[in-house]
Amino acid sequence: MDMATGGGDAHLPPVDPLARLRVAAQAREAAGLRRTLRPRTPDHDGLIDLASNDYLGLSRDERLVEAAVRAAREWGAGSTGSRLVTGTTSLHAELEDRLRAFTGAAGALVLSSGYLANLAAVTALGAGGLVVSDAGNHASIIDGCRLSRARVTVTPHKDVEAVEKALADRDEEHALVVTDAVFSVDGDLAPLRELHEAAVRYGALLLVDEAHSIGVVGERGQGAVHAAGLAGHPSVVMTVTLSKALGSQGGAVLGAPEVMRALVDAGRPFIFDTGLAPSCAGSALAALDIVSDHPELPGRARRHALALAGAAADRGLGAVDPAAAVVPVVLGPPQAALAAAEVFAEHGVRVGCFRPPSVPSGRSCLRLTARANLGSDDLAVIAGALTAVAEMKVNV
Amino acid sequence: MDMATGGGDAHLPPVDPLARLRVAAQAREAAGLRRTLRPRTPDHDGLIDLASNDYLGLSRDERLVEAAVRAAREWGAGSTGSRLVTGTTSLHAELEDRLRAFTGAAGALVLSSGYLANLAAVTALGAGGLVVSDAGNHASIIDGCRLSRARVTVTPHKDVEAVEKALADRDEEHALVVTDAVFSVDGDLAPLRELHEAAVRYGALLLVDEAHSIGVVGERGQGAVHAAGLAGHPSVVMTVTLSKALGSQGGAVLGAPEVMRALVDAGRPFIFDTGLAPSCAGSALAALDIVSDHPELPGRARRHALALAGAAADRGLGAVDPAAAVVPVVLGPPQAALAAAEVFAEHGVRVGCFRPPSVPSGRSCLRLTARANLGSDDLAVIAGALTAVAEMKVNV
Ligand SMILES: Cc1ncc(COP(=O)(O)O)c(C=O)c1O
Ligand SMILES: Cc1ncc(COP(=O)(O)O)c(C=O)c1O
Repeated sequence: MDMATGGGDAHLPPVDPLARLRVAAQAREAAGLRRTLRPRTPDHDGLIDLASNDYLGLSRDERLVEAAVRAAREWGAGSTGSRLVTGTTSLHAELEDRLRAFTGAAGALVLSSGYLANLAAVTALGAGGLVVSDAGNHASIIDGCRLSRARVTVTPHKDVEAVEKALADRDEEHALVVTDAVFSVDGDLAPLRELHEAAVRYGALLLVDEAHSIGVVGERGQGAVHAAGLAGHPSVVMTVTLSKALGSQGGAVLGAPEVMRALVDAGRPFIFDTGLAPSCAGSALAALDIVSDHPELPGRARRHALALAGAAADRGLGAVDPAAAVVPVVLGPPQAALAAAEVFAEHGVRVGCFRPPSVPSGRSCLRLTARANLGSDDLAVIAGALTAVAEMKVNV
Repeated sequence: MDMATGGGDAHLPPVDPLARLRVAAQAREAAGLRRTLRPRTPDHDGLIDLASNDYLGLSRDERLVEAAVRAAREWGAGSTGSRLVTGTTSLHAELEDRLRAFTGAAGALVLSSGYLANLAAVTALGAGGLVVSDAGNHASIIDGCRLSRARVTVTPHKDVEAVEKALADRDEEHALVVTDAVFSVDGDLAPLRELHEAAVRYGALLLVDEAHSIGVVGERGQGAVHAAGLAGHPSVVMTVTLSKALGSQGGAVLGAPEVMRALVDAGRPFIFDTGLAPSCAGSALAALDIVSDHPELPGRARRHALALAGAAADRGLGAVDPAAAVVPVVLGPPQAALAAAEVFAEHGVRVGCFRPPSVPSGRSCLRLTARANLGSDDLAVIAGALTAVAEMKVNV
């Protein structure tokens, strides 16, 4: 084809394919939605860390670090292949055994991230049926819904009646109800028992994402499904991440043997992804040891979250009692959230600042995350920062 | 609602939601498509490893391992958060600089897997436009296409004319052409120059997945885009994995600053996933050092692949000349592939065995992967196994 005068050119002149990306970037910038990557130092730039998901303060714990070291030395830096080819080491099998035992599930499958665990679980269990998904669910669940090509009904946040109605009204034979256990930005708990009743009543599976609850919720941190008395129930499936309370990286799907088999045989994000690095599997195992040996850690994280929420509420920053370690402080417009994060930084505290598309428009917020290893000095500094944010809010 | 006699029950009796999973598992079993997870030992159960993607034999290299050790000790076991919150360490920034320099791209963004890198790139660049995807593309690209909700045209394998036609005939303003550089099962090379010409001609972006080519293709292993003289071209975007030739775990998207910005601001699998573990970033950096210092490694892996393909062809097992380190041996039915893999195992060699859905129906195959560190003894053993497989094929 003649490059200068080919047919296609007549009605479709070559354009700069990057031009529209520049326009979109400018629009986001004008709306206060530009994001920046700021490399941090190992000690979080000397700031008090209220932004990470390191809820139990384990990610730098020597026991996790040395477990990663041992795993890398024994197994190498990578798992070298798909879990179905060379990517399953006996360390992965051990981690799966331990995750099963810890959460009370019948089976466990480890993936390289919680994100992919959700994609694998929702697609494998949802495809060809109806998926009923809470409006507050995490992006990885939403992406799983889209990817499943199932019919998806998004129900209002924590609205069990809407879930029941969606299940009752369906034409599809099978259905999957999916929810975060603890919602990632608002920090509230899903009505798991009621959702489970609805699922059982209508022959559906219930998938619960324990990303923010494993290691935090329940007396010994065994998660929200366990705390609700639903551990091991055949119609309950869980996903977890190893990257938050467990201080490492990776994810897992937990549930009945039939669910494990479906994922192994046909779960694309499981089959076609390289297995988790041995170092990460090793440190997650060490974290499970620590949580088992120190059942006081989850409670400590939760108590610190209550203290943070109380301090915010005392200053008119209206946080509700958190179910886990996530404490949101809603500011409204993205610029207000950015300004409040700046105030915290001036007080020596790093907080998360959430703007669209991470939160709905008009709900930009700070996200404070409690850690089991926050000290009373830390809490005093944080209280000072909250006072300053409250004053700033009054003044604008 | 009365739990015993509620309206929903009348037309939709509660069923065991796991029953259909059991039925599906039985059907797969009957079709020879059951998969098993077999934990391996650190030395691959004493077998010659022709199954992993450890193309340069670096995953157990002491330099990678000790880099992982240092990173874990300095930074901890996990990155502790999203790349946009606390998950960007200066190690991630350094790795991005090095990936950029190595591949010749303008910018780089590291994600926790190559799978998520593809999802992020295809969705961020494809949404709202047309995506033209090769029929042989990897599952993670296919999932990216589905997730993007773009109109997707799947073109026949390596059919540049079909790509041009799809681009020319489109109504959408923007378009993305996406291809594996080296196809993951067949090991052949995409016609990158021709695809790039087509993309430029029709104002589209070209996304090339260098999963199997980084560290392997091109004189110094800088990848297929670099080898085609396209490095740094603004309309070319690359994805890579850190988990194959680079021996670690993780992935990256590489391209123009506009592309990086689009991903940072709005790439869901980038924003909503925990950053790569420091240990993995550290070992990938060490791998890049080694490949730079030892430019003979990629050529060695490719030569070994040629030797394997030659040995297979000599025995009527019809392998074509591989473009990288992947050498497929097509057997046909899944049972034949399983039997051939068994023959290799009896000879002390581990190979990959690919059956649907990993390959099209009727194209079950062994996948032999060459490594830079295969010895001549290994090659002799492998030749013996190939002879036995050829005899088995004749006898059935
Ligand atoms: C609720 C929820 N699910 C899943 C994930 C994904 O887990 P990972 O970071 O391990 O991919 C996250 C956050 O990262 C999350 O907040
Ligand atoms: C072509 C291709 N792209 C992407 C991936 C995914 O990379 P990762 O394993 O790092 O998720 C793979 C295999 O794993 C692959 O073969």
